[in-house]
Amino acid sequence: MIRVTVWNENVQDQMGEKEFEFTKHWLANEEARRFVLERTRELREIHPEGIHGTLKRLVEEDEELVVRHVATLDMDECGLTREVLDDTDVLLWWAHVAHEQVPDEIAFRVRDYVWRGMGIIFLHSAHMCKPMQLLLGTSGTLRWREGDFCRVWTSAPAHPIARGIPEYFELETEEMYGEHFDIPTPDDQVFMSWYRGGEVFRSGCTWTRGCGRIFYFQPGHETNRSYYNEYVRRIIRNAVHWAAGTAAKREQIDCIHSVEPIEKR
Amino acid sequence: MIRVTVWNENVQDQMGEKEFEFTKHWLANEEARRFVLERTRELREIHPEGIHGTLKRLVEEDEELVVRHVATLDMDECGLTREVLDDTDVLLWWAHVAHEQVPDEIAFRVRDYVWRGMGIIFLHSAHMCKPMQLLLGTSGTLRWREGDFCRVWTSAPAHPIARGIPEYFELETEEMYGEHFDIPTPDDQVFMSWYRGGEVFRSGCTWTRGCGRIFYFQPGHETNRSYYNEYVRRIIRNAVHWAAGTAAKREQIDCIHSVEPIEKR
Amino acid sequence: MIRVTVWNENVQDQMGEKEFEFTKHWLANEEARRFVLERTRELREIHPEGIHGTLKRLVEEDEELVVRHVATLDMDECGLTREVLDDTDVLLWWAHVAHEQVPDEIAFRVRDYVWRGMGIIFLHSAHMCKPMQLLLGTSGTLRWREGDFCRVWTSAPAHPIARGIPEYFELETEEMYGEHFDIPTPDDQVFMSWYRGGEVFRSGCTWTRGCGRIFYFQPGHETNRSYYNEYVRRIIRNAVHWAAGTAAKREQIDCIHSVEPIEKR
Amino acid sequence: MIRVTVWNENVQDQMGEKEFEFTKHWLANEEARRFVLERTRELREIHPEGIHGTLKRLVEEDEELVVRHVATLDMDECGLTREVLDDTDVLLWWAHVAHEQVPDEIAFRVRDYVWRGMGIIFLHSAHMCKPMQLLLGTSGTLRWREGDFCRVWTSAPAHPIARGIPEYFELETEEMYGEHFDIPTPDDQVFMSWYRGGEVFRSGCTWTRGCGRIFYFQPGHETNRSYYNEYVRRIIRNAVHWAAGTAAKREQIDCIHSVEPIEKR
Repeated sequence: MIRVTVWNENVQDQMGEKEFEFTKHWLANEEARRFVLERTRELREIHPEGIHGTLKRLVEEDEELVVRHVATLDMDECGLTREVLDDTDVLLWWAHVAHEQVPDEIAFRVRDYVWRGMGIIFLHSAHMCKPMQLLLGTSGTLRWREGDFCRVWTSAPAHPIARGIPEYFELETEEMYGEHFDIPTPDDQVFMSWYRGGEVFRSGCTWTRGCGRIFYFQPGHETNRSYYNEYVRRIIRNAVHWAAGTAAKREQIDCIHSVEPIEKR
Repeated sequence: MIRVTVWNENVQDQMGEKEFEFTKHWLANEEARRFVLERTRELREIHPEGIHGTLKRLVEEDEELVVRHVATLDMDECGLTREVLDDTDVLLWWAHVAHEQVPDEIAFRVRDYVWRGMGIIFLHSAHMCKPMQLLLGTSGTLRWREGDFCRVWTSAPAHPIARGIPEYFELETEEMYGEHFDIPTPDDQVFMSWYRGGEVFRSGCTWTRGCGRIFYFQPGHETNRSYYNEYVRRIIRNAVHWAAGTAAKREQIDCIHSVEPIEKR
Repeated sequence: MIRVTVWNENVQDQMGEKEFEFTKHWLANEEARRFVLERTRELREIHPEGIHGTLKRLVEEDEELVVRHVATLDMDECGLTREVLDDTDVLLWWAHVAHEQVPDEIAFRVRDYVWRGMGIIFLHSAHMCKPMQLLLGTSGTLRWREGDFCRVWTSAPAHPIARGIPEYFELETEEMYGEHFDIPTPDDQVFMSWYRGGEVFRSGCTWTRGCGRIFYFQPGHETNRSYYNEYVRRIIRNAVHWAAGTAAKREQIDCIHSVEPIEKR
Repeated sequence: MIRVTVWNENVQDQMGEKEFEFTKHWLANEEARRFVLERTRELREIHPEGIHGTLKRLVEEDEELVVRHVATLDMDECGLTREVLDDTDVLLWWAHVAHEQVPDEIAFRVRDYVWRGMGIIFLHSAHMCKPMQLLLGTSGTLRWREGDFCRVWTSAPAHPIARGIPEYFELETEEMYGEHFDIPTPDDQVFMSWYRGGEVFRSGCTWTRGCGRIFYFQPGHETNRSYYNEYVRRIIRNAVHWAAGTAAKREQIDCIHSVEPIEKR
């Protein structure tokens, strides 16, 4: 059994229902507020339980996977207490408009848990969230445009994350993310996407940091239905299995230590 | 000054002018012969001096580069004698219909020179030639279709091969090469291509083998004008500079040797 | 259940017992013959069933692994017929003095099966065998010296092949293999070795080619007892599990094909 | 001409001469203070102008390199103002006891300049400094022991940083740094070190982040004479040339932007 925690910033998911204080604060900007408000109705039709709810159901279609925690930005410590992370094998991270609202302390904590062996899957607009920048060391910048036809190509057919995925599949409407994508060279380039508007994108990438495995996967715009696509669902579940597959977990990260030379032993 | 040798199989380039014996032999197949014959007129209009001639002129626009040899399949030892290779810093390789006509001995010889420090640039349909398979260890298989609109994206803007190249450029007509491209994970993914028909491709890739640097670059279908595109020309010249930039050349590849332990010295 | 085939050149293992014709032929050189003959007695004491026998027993300590075939150089087609390879998930390859005796046809056949998804583990002096050179594209040259104390360090503690392996372990006597080791940059650097005589070596390395996974592992000199070390045994079994873990097997390698553009579908 | 800035925390270099306020503050711990004080005399004998002074002289032996700025922890903004960084092609970073004293703001600023194209070379105990952790995404933890004999092996002889370096060279006394070294798989593994006490270390490693090139190099303990070794000096200068060799510099890192589809153009 693999223990999964789903993290969603859960801002656009509920704007217009309740506008809690921290949202008012950073969305003082009128335009940004309108941008978010517009999406809420559309998002709730697609994700009636929030994006985290959709992801939870998607993960739990696999009997070996169990979602132990759903965590959101408005919870204490963003819902990512040490108790929660100690109970997590793989963390899913969806975020978009509120990257800056995640305290540095929480972002560094997530990074440290990945170093110790927790897997992490960054979804869609999480490409610039703090934990991803801290783990990859790059900005995650890219080009984008809403509402394009997308074809996802499998460029590493033998990778475990591509298990059961055809040579390509299509998403009728997805947000375009295009190169140049500022990431370190991936360990494995599992998927690459084509957009009708003229762009390409490294849409499925893996890395390892410390004892933890990392997967970035592009689909999942908040107002599109990609998380209901059978292949997208399969890929995320495959990625949870893969990210949980490390051989070792470290007790602590401050494992630097002085040692005696071999001759003295 | 960097010494360049241009190798072109030079089969389609001259079919219909003279049909030398070895061509007759392996093109006994009637359909293959027609396929090649049809292209000759078109190719000669675009490349009046053969593809090797076009490549030679392209390279020599850069004053630091000199084409010392032009070699073709019909020459003795394919024109790749040890004297020629000893006089070569970077080898360009264009081939298409006659991969199997290159003797194993010559293919292994080219591989060995790369191991010792000669750079090599595989162009377009060279993706399945013997030296590329021997150096990368993969099949080089891919999907293809003639006559598509192509957009080449720069996915490693800081790489020396991308010097002076914009974030993307376009080729009105090029042969589509699409994923899955069977190659080892590139050291650097410098360019990625988009085709109107719906495919993506890792179109500019680097690797190192032994002391030699390797670049694969997709554009250059025999009946298209890609080698007259200013950016394609610039990329090939950049790649020659990059491929010549190794720090060491080995005298020989059989450098395996027994050594005394440190204490005895 | 994972189906394993063990291949051993089986030359030093039996010299002096029977000297079959092909051995006489290529060991016409008197010094080489003496070199091999000297080792036979020592080798047979350590490996009474040959190195292949030792490897077979080692693999089968894991109930999920079954050795379906033991193949040696003196068999028809080196024992690696298509029937045998079709029945193999992971191939172990031990070789030393007779690399050149493996026909090119068999070496290319093994390469092609790896491309289609068969895992392969190259052991010790297999570092220069034909299939390894064909799959990696490098010479595999290195420095060597017999009879040194060796410490194997785990440099990727979270890799599945390092499961259950401590931060380092020691081999009282092993052949030293030292840098520079001419290989492509490994996908994962799982183990690195220290030798008392003053050398370091990238002793456990992974790569992927096509659909197949490749592991090289240094220990296993024919007159040393490394294959009886519990950690060496564990690593080889871990590697079999890892190498069998690809998601896809290709029916054939000539998968290049022409495709229609997306708009026409 | 390549513009270099040398950064040194400059704490051990001057303790006992003047003890400025911020040092007193964080070295309230008596033991740590003694540790640092002991080294000062020894360090000043080896580096009469401080480690930064030694590095400055070393760099400027190459006429193409000029040290434009020497920056230390006690300066305003650690001496790394935007004016200084705008005037820097490659930054050298030496640090040891005061990693935490570098404000996050400065560490993130350095990271952002690397993303835009500034090269950076992390020396010795900088392996856990903030900019290195932020750029690589790993902890940089390792094993260590003072005072060992070290042999540095060249594991990528064709890499530009290895130009002019023999297959190995020796340092009579250097601090041992040993595996497991917690870093992302290097793009190129240029050097590997052997220590008499029984350890190995990936001592010369390259990565790229954004438009910036990164090199980590192990030698340089504060009380050893490694920076007077001709090969160490040559490697650092080679690395400055290499790190300056990116093709592009970005004006800004927030290059994420929305784009029109190709059809509309």
